[in-house]
Amino acid sequence: MEKFNIAVVGATGAVGRQMVKTLEGRNFPVNKLKLIATEKSAGKEMTFKGEKYTVETIKKGIFNDIDIALFSIGSEPSKKIVPQVVSEGAIVIDNSNAFRMAEGVPLVVPEINPEVIPENKGIIANPNCSTIQMVVALKPIYDNFGIKRIVVSTYQAVSGTGKKAIDELTGQVKDFAAGKELKSEVYPTQIAFNVLPHIDVFFDNGYTKEELKMERETRKILGNQDIAITATAARVPVYYGHSESINIETKKEFNMEQVRELLGNMEGLEIVDDYPLTIMSETNDNVLVGRLRRDFSVENGINMWVVANNLRKGAALNAVQIAEKLTKYL
Amino acid sequence: MEKFNIAVVGATGAVGRQMVKTLEGRNFPVNKLKLIATEKSAGKEMTFKGEKYTVETIKKGIFNDIDIALFSIGSEPSKKIVPQVVSEGAIVIDNSNAFRMAEGVPLVVPEINPEVIPENKGIIANPNCSTIQMVVALKPIYDNFGIKRIVVSTYQAVSGTGKKAIDELTGQVKDFAAGKELKSEVYPTQIAFNVLPHIDVFFDNGYTKEELKMERETRKILGNQDIAITATAARVPVYYGHSESINIETKKEFNMEQVRELLGNMEGLEIVDDYPLTIMSETNDNVLVGRLRRDFSVENGINMWVVANNLRKGAALNAVQIAEKLTKYL
Repeated sequence: MEKFNIAVVGATGAVGRQMVKTLEGRNFPVNKLKLIATEKSAGKEMTFKGEKYTVETIKKGIFNDIDIALFSIGSEPSKKIVPQVVSEGAIVIDNSNAFRMAEGVPLVVPEINPEVIPENKGIIANPNCSTIQMVVALKPIYDNFGIKRIVVSTYQAVSGTGKKAIDELTGQVKDFAAGKELKSEVYPTQIAFNVLPHIDVFFDNGYTKEELKMERETRKILGNQDIAITATAARVPVYYGHSESINIETKKEFNMEQVRELLGNMEGLEIVDDYPLTIMSETNDNVLVGRLRRDFSVENGINMWVVANNLRKGAALNAVQIAEKLTKYL
Repeated sequence: MEKFNIAVVGATGAVGRQMVKTLEGRNFPVNKLKLIATEKSAGKEMTFKGEKYTVETIKKGIFNDIDIALFSIGSEPSKKIVPQVVSEGAIVIDNSNAFRMAEGVPLVVPEINPEVIPENKGIIANPNCSTIQMVVALKPIYDNFGIKRIVVSTYQAVSGTGKKAIDELTGQVKDFAAGKELKSEVYPTQIAFNVLPHIDVFFDNGYTKEELKMERETRKILGNQDIAITATAARVPVYYGHSESINIETKKEFNMEQVRELLGNMEGLEIVDDYPLTIMSETNDNVLVGRLRRDFSVENGINMWVVANNLRKGAALNAVQIAEKLTKYL
């Protein structure tokens, strides 16, 4: 089996660590592995398949021998560094928002649109975590009945913000248990025992960037600019696993048995009897769907509850799955 | 000022305690106060306006001298006991689901439909917590533009389940901080760091009772059976304050400045710049509205985020406000 030279950039972050774990767990055909991070993390040691690797920083030529570079360093750093990587000949799979909506950059969920992978010009974008799990659940419905409109509300985990937010929730919970005052640095207010309807920055129209990502990326991935979508994104005091309450209005008639069967046959999706919990996503890589029921408030309506691990299927796993498909074209 | 004889039934529960506090805090014209609970709590002492009261149990004739009995003991106990109270001549304001949808029982949110209070035949129903905060925010929109359809997703606090659930979340958080395994009794699974899309019992159509309450009660309170509503109710690890992501399709055109002004003028409602947090409802009795923005996915759409204290406006405060209005007819 052919093996590939892989770089993980942002290797010490919450998603980066998960990328390394996922490459190992899925037995990705790795020849050489480079773990790259900022100066602050340089020299740290990480383990991959029982071997120790020293974290490096970016320097000229470091991507010359790399086939695929998995990036998770945020939009602004990605914008600066990715052009260098492409010029050194590696293909970047970028987890940030930097290139997702750009012309000529495939935005890929491997279960949905793997056919656009070879259209890349050196960059493939990994969609937003909230988008990925939603489109996996929408895809069979879209293909069979069309989608007119989606109303989605999210319940998102703190790990989506990164390792510091995980530590902040833990710190607040420990301070609460000890009867101390809660301190907030990452979020504008306490996240323990609270709900923040605010993810990413606000735009003038009142929506957050997270909400607009869900609209725009869903249309691009499904390849249909006519799907009407409105989203409300909120952060809840949960470590791992985003939950989404998704309301769908289809174009064509359906019966719920068909919908259930189509979803049950969807790759990477699992219907959970009763309902999925966020904590289930800590040990299950599938997009978990439950609370599947007809919405009686509209002619062709469906309600469903969709849960997935935001660091895995929502980020690292999806990126590695893209890399797996990409190797066929290298 | 005329004073009234008041009984609080279920006085030692989470809502009952809040009822006593609210009667005191709003300086309700109380002549005689009876605090009533089950055998288990009988003999306990509670304080009202600096005086000690001993908790009594229900016996024949105990409501003979009572003008208004505030009930918060759950549906089944209410169904058994309320007829006795009515026959002894007190008017019951019942916080349970037992009589809400019954013909001849006014279902009241005092800011919205106080005019139905005198239609009571001995029982007035307090709506479900999730419904109350939603209808307060819907009312000015309904009156001015009509409402075609509502899609709502809730983020509900554990205090809605009662004192045991509050203690369970605290116990789980303390066990987590101490590195111990989490124990669950009240909920089917851990509620700490988790989201449960399950409130009250399930019906065959896939909806929970909580979700159907939001549909039916909203139509009854607004006096319009044609409003289409679909709800998804979820429990989040928050102590006090329900949050709701509400999507509204109106019948008539509007502009957002009008909507903002109408909501700003609504009694018992406060628009919070940026957005309301659940923890704000711990010290604010208003229905808090934020994230107010046009929904571009439909012709006449509005999205908003609505937060209120489920034990106060969602239960005890609304019940006491009904009692205040009711005194004018006694």
